[in-house]
Formats: sequence, C-alpha cells, structure tokens
Amino acid sequence: MLSKNHQKLILSLHQKKFRQKHKQFIAEGSKIVVEAIKKGFTYDLLFYTKTWLQEHKELEGKGVEVSEKEMKKLSSLKTPPGVLAIFPFLKNEKVTSEIVLVLDKIQDPGNLGTMIRTAHAFGCKNIFCSDDSVDCYNSKVVQATMGSLFYVNIEYVEIGSFLTSFKKSNKSKVYSFDLNGEDIYKTIIDFPAIILLGNESNGVRKELDSAIDKKLKIPISEEIDSLNVSVSQAIALAEFNRVLKK
Amino acid sequence: MLSKNHQKLILSLHQKKFRQKHKQFIAEGSKIVVEAIKKGFTYDLLFYTKTWLQEHKELEGKGVEVSEKEMKKLSSLKTPPGVLAIFPFLKNEKVTSEIVLVLDKIQDPGNLGTMIRTAHAFGCKNIFCSDDSVDCYNSKVVQATMGSLFYVNIEYVEIGSFLTSFKKSNKSKVYSFDLNGEDIYKTIIDFPAIILLGNESNGVRKELDSAIDKKLKIPISEEIDSLNVSVSQAIALAEFNRVLKK
Repeated sequence: MLSKNHQKLILSLHQKKFRQKHKQFIAEGSKIVVEAIKKGFTYDLLFYTKTWLQEHKELEGKGVEVSEKEMKKLSSLKTPPGVLAIFPFLKNEKVTSEIVLVLDKIQDPGNLGTMIRTAHAFGCKNIFCSDDSVDCYNSKVVQATMGSLFYVNIEYVEIGSFLTSFKKSNKSKVYSFDLNGEDIYKTIIDFPAIILLGNESNGVRKELDSAIDKKLKIPISEEIDSLNVSVSQAIALAEFNRVLKK
Repeated sequence: MLSKNHQKLILSLHQKKFRQKHKQFIAEGSKIVVEAIKKGFTYDLLFYTKTWLQEHKELEGKGVEVSEKEMKKLSSLKTPPGVLAIFPFLKNEKVTSEIVLVLDKIQDPGNLGTMIRTAHAFGCKNIFCSDDSVDCYNSKVVQATMGSLFYVNIEYVEIGSFLTSFKKSNKSKVYSFDLNGEDIYKTIIDFPAIILLGNESNGVRKELDSAIDKKLKIPISEEIDSLNVSVSQAIALAEFNRVLKK
C-alpha cells in the first residue's frame, strides 16, 4: 500500500525544483527500470502493481506493491506501465570520448531524450547542456532515453564560458550545422570533436559563434530550411563515427 | 465570430472517422498554414485571432476572426498558435523518386511527422504506410511535419500485397534494418530502393521477410539494442542519398 509520505515525495519529483532538492528522479516502465536494476544501478524506492509483479517475480519483495488506482496517481503517463522507481541523481564521469555533444537550449523533452539515446548508441558518453535547456531528469526525457540516461554523463553548464574553456583544455574542434556551411561529406573532420546543436526554433545563440571552428551542412532539398534537431544530431553523429572508425 | 456549424466541423476533424468522412484535415500554426497558402495550396476554411492577424495583415479578410477563447476551444494545442486552417485531403502523385519509404505500423504521431519532414528533406517524395499505422492527418503528425506534409505523397496500403507487387512493378530492392544485418557502410546499395521500417516496439512484421532483399545494420554500441525509428530513418536516408549522389 502507498503511504502518504511516499505519495507526497513522488508527486513532488514531477517538478524540477523538488528533483533538485532531493537529488532524485522518477523512472517509469519495465525496460528502463528492470535494465537499470540489472546493470547494478541502485534505486531508492520501487513501486509496482500486482499484475506487473506477476511478470517480474525476481523483484518480489524488493519494492512496494500499490493498486492500479494508486499507480495512476503517481504516474505521469496516461497508461501507467505498472512500475515506477526513484533513483538518485547519476554521477558524472570524466570526458573520455572522441566526440562530445554540446546542446544549446534544447526545449522539447522528446528531442533531448532521443538525443541521449542516439548519443549512447554512437559511444558519445558526454553531453553538456546550457543552463536553460530542459531538465534531463524530466520524466518525459527519462522515458524517451529508453534507459540510455544511465549510460551517458550529462552536465548543465554556463555554455559560453564552458565552450571556450573546454575546447581549449580538451584540444577539441567545435562543429555546428548550418545550411550555408561546408558539405559534411566533403570536409575533413578533426578529433576530438564537439558537435554543437542549438534550440529548436532559434538554433545556436550568436554569442557562441566565435567558438565555432567549422559550420557544416547536411545536404538537403532546397524546399526545406531545417531538420528536426534530433535528426540532425543522428546524421552528424553517424557520419562522425563512420569517419572516426575508418 | 465562430459559428456553431464551424465549431462542430472543426471539433469533429480531431477524429479520424470524421476526417475521412469530410476528406479534410486541420493544420495549426503560422509556419505550416502561411507556407502552405504561399505555395498555392487552397484551404477550405481559415480561422485566426486578432493578435495573430496583426502580424499577418496579408491575410486580412481571407478568413474568420475568432476570439482567443474560441480559438482555445478549437485547438488541439495547449498554447494555441492563433491560426488554424482546414485543408482538403492532399492528392497523391505517381512515384518518381529513387528512394521510397514503406512504414509498417508506426504508431507515434511525433515519429511519423518527423519521418515525413526528413523524407521531404532528402527528396523522398513517396511514403507508403500500412493500414494500421497512425493517420498522417492526425493533428500531432501534421504539426511535427512542419509543413512537409504538403510536399510528400502518403498512401495507406495493405502492406503485404503492396510490397510484393510494388517492388516487382518498380524493379526496386527492399532494404530493412537489423542489428544482425550487413554494415550499411560496407554494402552496395542498388536503386531504385525501398527503405522498409517497422513498428516502434516490434519492428517489421514477420510476414514481410520474404520481400526483403537485404537487411542492413547501422553500426551502434553493443550496450544498446535499437535506435528511435525516426533516427534510423534519418541515418539510412542520409546515407542512401549520399551514395545515390556520388
């Protein structure tokens, strides 16, 4: 049964200010929760319904059983998946990958979540987001990462000063994307590389221009003026990775 | 002012069965509506708020002015963008592109919308969806296409018989994606090509296996078992396009 205290805590964690206060976040759904536990990530609290537990007997006694009605109260999803866990904020590790992602004011949770998943897929283990980006512990972001959140280091930074100092200390080249840039397929890409992507409507803020080493173009039809940012990221990362491994 | 009849029509068009009955769909937002009108697409009805009209004086007298409150009733969005148009269903043109997209039971409106936008960007003008896919005139799909819906031909088909007969008549090769497939960067790709992508959870249905000429692998980390379907589509389309134009 769900206690008043647990209910209060979980509902508060749907808001960023309480996530930051408690340094905890919510993960919902079998794929994310079960895989994270299997991989050895420690949860603070675990809630499941009877129906869900029948399919996951290995977790019997490891959490709190709640009714479908109680789960509906806790969940941010229209159709609650039957399992919800509270994890502590993840620890960040040092930058080791040859490709690092820097994101300037991404606002859509689905986009950020998808970008975290794609970054993980291409071995890009470090993502830096501007302070004013959507929170990576937002439940829609967590959902869209499909578990990749646990494998990628995400830090929120003051993007202007970060970019300048990081590219210097890490000896990286900064690449951004622009319809007037050089064709991505006809350019020499130097590593370590920083892929810099901007806000869904406004792109990368102007004050970062001086930190950019090369603007690249993904060749697309003249009928269209942009791609979805998570699509640009995917094409760029796949191509950088192809070049790196050649 | 908004009439009862208009209100009834618009609210009904949020449902697929009424869209199909009236052969009309809703487009919301400046980018989509204004660009479609500029490009010569004829709308059946246009609604805007006073505030919106002030920024788009060229459309004065071309639509019905409604209050913010009335617009909120009509809109499917939390923050209505101030303009909403009803367009007739789009006409489909013959297949002419070297790359055609076939989608098996895509369910997420955001994914389908993004895939339509990406297809348009790479000159892929024909998309065939299985009958049980999300409706391309669903307002969330329309929104996510960012206007590309007007440029791409989308048909709903009985996917099994369609794929067999189309690949024969069009002399196309069918490519699908699988972690056990051939490396996409080390394979010879033949055109005209069909890119076949499947459902978000279950992939391509088994009964289509015999129609597939080659399964391709996008090389990703072993820690991860899949990419978002719109991300796979983007990487595949960008690579097919690069090869085609070489």
